[in-house]
Amino acid sequence: MTEPAEPARTAGPARRGRGRRPADEVRADVLGAAGALLLDKGMGAFTIEAVAERAGASKTTIYKWWPSKGALALDGYFHAVESALAFPDTGDLEADLTAQLRSFVRVLTGTPAGRVIAELIGQAQTDPDLAAALSQRYSGPRRELAVRRMRRAREQGELRADVDPEVLVDQLWGACYHRLLLPGPPVTEEFATSLVGNLMRGVRA
Amino acid sequence: MTEPAEPARTAGPARRGRGRRPADEVRADVLGAAGALLLDKGMGAFTIEAVAERAGASKTTIYKWWPSKGALALDGYFHAVESALAFPDTGDLEADLTAQLRSFVRVLTGTPAGRVIAELIGQAQTDPDLAAALSQRYSGPRRELAVRRMRRAREQGELRADVDPEVLVDQLWGACYHRLLLPGPPVTEEFATSLVGNLMRGVRA
Repeated sequence: MTEPAEPARTAGPARRGRGRRPADEVRADVLGAAGALLLDKGMGAFTIEAVAERAGASKTTIYKWWPSKGALALDGYFHAVESALAFPDTGDLEADLTAQLRSFVRVLTGTPAGRVIAELIGQAQTDPDLAAALSQRYSGPRRELAVRRMRRAREQGELRADVDPEVLVDQLWGACYHRLLLPGPPVTEEFATSLVGNLMRGVRA
Repeated sequence: MTEPAEPARTAGPARRGRGRRPADEVRADVLGAAGALLLDKGMGAFTIEAVAERAGASKTTIYKWWPSKGALALDGYFHAVESALAFPDTGDLEADLTAQLRSFVRVLTGTPAGRVIAELIGQAQTDPDLAAALSQRYSGPRRELAVRRMRRAREQGELRADVDPEVLVDQLWGACYHRLLLPGPPVTEEFATSLVGNLMRGVRA
């Protein structure tokens, strides 16, 4: 087994012997391999061994950075969807939210990502370590990105001052997760557009 | 083991021998026992045996009506929360939705029901039979009750004609499930009130 070692994560210059790569590079390779494996094969085939093989890294290396398979899966998932789920800021909140949510829906329904994250969330309900990893490595950071975009909109006078962006996260992305996790009508791009329209304008006759 | 038999579910008069109870009564007892056991002990202690013992019914009887433990748990759960989660209709949609969602939040957070339904939803992500039972016995019927109340409001001119009540379900109850299933800010009655207010009035400045 070829096993490229990586420099220790302590301060100081990295040793660059034969077969040694900078830690950041190994880390990026592992994340890329984890994300690709998840989206190719789903959680059923996701093992530390398979990620190590795909990344050309050792299991020891992976365990040094990720305490569990679930933590690695969630980091890999975040890494894989990050660019598709960026938050645009054109100065038009409704257009930006609609575009981002439609991309989110495409990721959930047009790739295996929807089943992968549904399984991870599902397993987290009875696995406290996975629940903590889900919060720290996925849902927390994603929520923070969304809240940041909406706070800017509030500062720019696009949202009422008394509206809590945290609640909007649940009424937009949370609504999509609801249809993903509890069987219901399909998750479509039109659904995403309605979510934003309902909230921005209100539904009262 | 005392094992009260129950009349066959075919047409015709029920035989009322010693120890025989009408099928409807046995069925109600089983549902009551299932719901009570779930809310007392959670899914970890939930077995067909334990429900049979609590209800004074036989396992055979239970299996005749419920194909699996998950199906019985979901029916028992629905039965246990049904009265707390009724949909009032006072003719004021915002007040009625707020009251219902605040009750829902109290059920989710003030009883073990939140953990129970979270575990059932979680397990359903990798168990197709449980997913089907969840849809048929819980989320489908609950969604239908909510949609019916909102359709009436639309007919009475409280909701815009172009608003889809199905989407509102995801932006109200779905938002609560989102906080329940994906770690985030706490589920509170104030949160429930904000959900309704945001949607009814809109959030645009």
